[in-house]
Amino acid sequence: MSRSRAPELVQADDILEFTLDSQPLKQTDARLYGERVIHGGIYQARPDVNAVCHHHAPSILPFCISGMELKPVFHLGATLGETVPFWDARDDFGDTTLIVAKPEEGASLARALGPSWIVLMRRHGATVAGATLEELTFRTIYTARNAALQIQAHTLGHVSPLNEAEIRLAGEYNLRPGPVARAWEYWNVRLDKAEGTFRPKKEKTGAPKKSAAKRRARRHR
Amino acid sequence: MSRSRAPELVQADDILEFTLDSQPLKQTDARLYGERVIHGGIYQARPDVNAVCHHHAPSILPFCISGMELKPVFHLGATLGETVPFWDARDDFGDTTLIVAKPEEGASLARALGPSWIVLMRRHGATVAGATLEELTFRTIYTARNAALQIQAHTLGHVSPLNEAEIRLAGEYNLRPGPVARAWEYWNVRLDKAEGTFRPKKEKTGAPKKSAAKRRARRHR
Amino acid sequence: MSRSRAPELVQADDILEFTLDSQPLKQTDARLYGERVIHGGIYQARPDVNAVCHHHAPSILPFCISGMELKPVFHLGATLGETVPFWDARDDFGDTTLIVAKPEEGASLARALGPSWIVLMRRHGATVAGATLEELTFRTIYTARNAALQIQAHTLGHVSPLNEAEIRLAGEYNLRPGPVARAWEYWNVRLDKAEGTFRPKKEKTGAPKKSAAKRRARRHR
Amino acid sequence: MSRSRAPELVQADDILEFTLDSQPLKQTDARLYGERVIHGGIYQARPDVNAVCHHHAPSILPFCISGMELKPVFHLGATLGETVPFWDARDDFGDTTLIVAKPEEGASLARALGPSWIVLMRRHGATVAGATLEELTFRTIYTARNAALQIQAHTLGHVSPLNEAEIRLAGEYNLRPGPVARAWEYWNVRLDKAEGTFRPKKEKTGAPKKSAAKRRARRHR
Repeated sequence: MSRSRAPELVQADDILEFTLDSQPLKQTDARLYGERVIHGGIYQARPDVNAVCHHHAPSILPFCISGMELKPVFHLGATLGETVPFWDARDDFGDTTLIVAKPEEGASLARALGPSWIVLMRRHGATVAGATLEELTFRTIYTARNAALQIQAHTLGHVSPLNEAEIRLAGEYNLRPGPVARAWEYWNVRLDKAEGTFRPKKEKTGAPKKSAAKRRARRHR
Repeated sequence: MSRSRAPELVQADDILEFTLDSQPLKQTDARLYGERVIHGGIYQARPDVNAVCHHHAPSILPFCISGMELKPVFHLGATLGETVPFWDARDDFGDTTLIVAKPEEGASLARALGPSWIVLMRRHGATVAGATLEELTFRTIYTARNAALQIQAHTLGHVSPLNEAEIRLAGEYNLRPGPVARAWEYWNVRLDKAEGTFRPKKEKTGAPKKSAAKRRARRHR
Repeated sequence: MSRSRAPELVQADDILEFTLDSQPLKQTDARLYGERVIHGGIYQARPDVNAVCHHHAPSILPFCISGMELKPVFHLGATLGETVPFWDARDDFGDTTLIVAKPEEGASLARALGPSWIVLMRRHGATVAGATLEELTFRTIYTARNAALQIQAHTLGHVSPLNEAEIRLAGEYNLRPGPVARAWEYWNVRLDKAEGTFRPKKEKTGAPKKSAAKRRARRHR
Repeated sequence: MSRSRAPELVQADDILEFTLDSQPLKQTDARLYGERVIHGGIYQARPDVNAVCHHHAPSILPFCISGMELKPVFHLGATLGETVPFWDARDDFGDTTLIVAKPEEGASLARALGPSWIVLMRRHGATVAGATLEELTFRTIYTARNAALQIQAHTLGHVSPLNEAEIRLAGEYNLRPGPVARAWEYWNVRLDKAEGTFRPKKEKTGAPKKSAAKRRARRHR
């Protein structure tokens, strides 16, 4: 995990290694994220999790504020599962800063996550888990998009979730290598474009490359 | 159609040719879109269609989720027609992944589209057809804008559609060569700007080019 | 007015001169805007108007669709006046294409505008008038922003307009040279930034320019 | 404070010094902000305030229009405090231009602010105060984000505020040096990116810099 820095600014040499107790492996003067126990707590409880994201996505927060239940409403939101866990720190800790900074708070959050892959945090945001970084990114982005659509659909009328079978079938399809890889390539390109380092990749399709196509591709760099 | 790739990343040498059965013409190792049968199914059923777009536009999805009927509410949405077809895969297939991957699913969707130019897909998105690529793009973008306006208008009060005559008259006007060409030029320029390849075009207006105007146009490149 | 082209693409040599009957002064092969009679009709009826804007702003259209009355709700929307005229083409013409292409339609719209500076057009958009181009731009942008705020405020509760005296006093203040000039400089800079031609201007403030400030300003170009 | 100019355009040599009576220290021909008495009035009343921001943020204005009470709804909005002061110029001045241009109007607004750090201005916007510029920026941005979330949450159901203890605890945590510094760095980078002057900073973390990381960081500039 990076030292404490706005995520958009993180560079390769900001990355530090931590123990499962969220202590840095090597001694450092860098300021660390106060909420690193969110990550450590989940890694401790879930050997199947290899990537964690904590965020305050504006589309998800209304569900952490209003009490309306977040549920999968379109095919790409199926990874939400049938019930989205909701963690309220007051259950274990009474009134707090709402920040998850103590190991026991991270452990409490991990208990609320249970075997799921996303947990909402009252008045705060969400934490998402994944078996891989690619899958984590897919889950994080599409659950947030599902939330945005649920809010919009709610203004038009009653919103019901996908049914149990659809959630299972669509959720499985979403996480197949094809969809996840296509999305992963896309988001990496968007990052490169944002950083001004984008060069279009050319993958072999098996068809002979026409020379005109080659010149056009070169112009696109 | 392209090999399976996020649309924003598609290059000229990603484009492959397919049969009406959505099989690639030339043997290829490239990963293909799972939902290419949406396109093949419509081309099979509709000889008048020469371009198809399948999307998950955020303004359209609330109508695929909430059961609120999408209808033309402003002049540029008239191409929606009086009734927008709605396809529910459960009618023919029960619970599915919500993905249209099997030929029979593409055929079912094409039946729902019927003679129309857009069909909503429950919990998924929409598919749009056009006689030309230019017309397809016009229909796709303005139906999505109509949807966004209908959602906003709905928060202010009851929303009624354009009447039958207006839908017909405005729809015809929208698809005249002038409006479609003006929009087509605009969206091409926006793509070029996004890709950093934009050079302002100078069309002959019949008026002598003033030298000051020429210098100003050159500065804008 | 420009020949028929998406506004964002208009260049200096697209601009043509028209009579008050919306006929081009010089013979031209260029395609012309079908709705130029909106402009000509208002110039004919209003000798005090020297700039006209016709648009389909997404924040204004919900008021052209839902029947909710657009009203000034914040200080910068005071130029809307107490009552915003609403033009319904069906009153004079029955069912139409919703496009204002005939001289009599432009005249009808101008009658609806009356002595006001903005008129809403049912299911279509709005037309705004101004004594100068700077004032027109101010009115156009801030009436659209007022509309957006009215929609948001409406979701929170009942929305009442500014009272009569506030509309008059705030409206007068808005259109003083200072506010209009400051906004005009700002929007011109935003256009320059969008076109990649922005160079920060340095106006004399009367204070001696410090050399450090000079070097910093140079770095900002 | 700058001379009268759209904030986005302000350069170093636009900055002028003013007395607490909002008069320029040095004689100048520059046009000055009509509302500089907002700032002067608060500095007069509040020796603990060293930075002031007046704005018309679109997420805050609906609360200045609708009468809905703005309240802290998520952890980063805790700095709103339990009750957000609301200033109505009509109480002291009857109908006005809604602009705060007279010294007595600035004084009235400062009285409404009282010991708080934000005051809403009916039909106008908000004014925010801070002990430092960094703190002011944090308060300004996160109170506006809280407002946006409250509007969204309101569409989903009843919205209650954080409780008294949470407001106090979370508010204190928000304004610790760590969170404020991290946010300050982030917003400065966003400004640099917007102005095209961004160069990634490399801070010593105490770990030896790997040569591969060094080359990668150099490529990111």
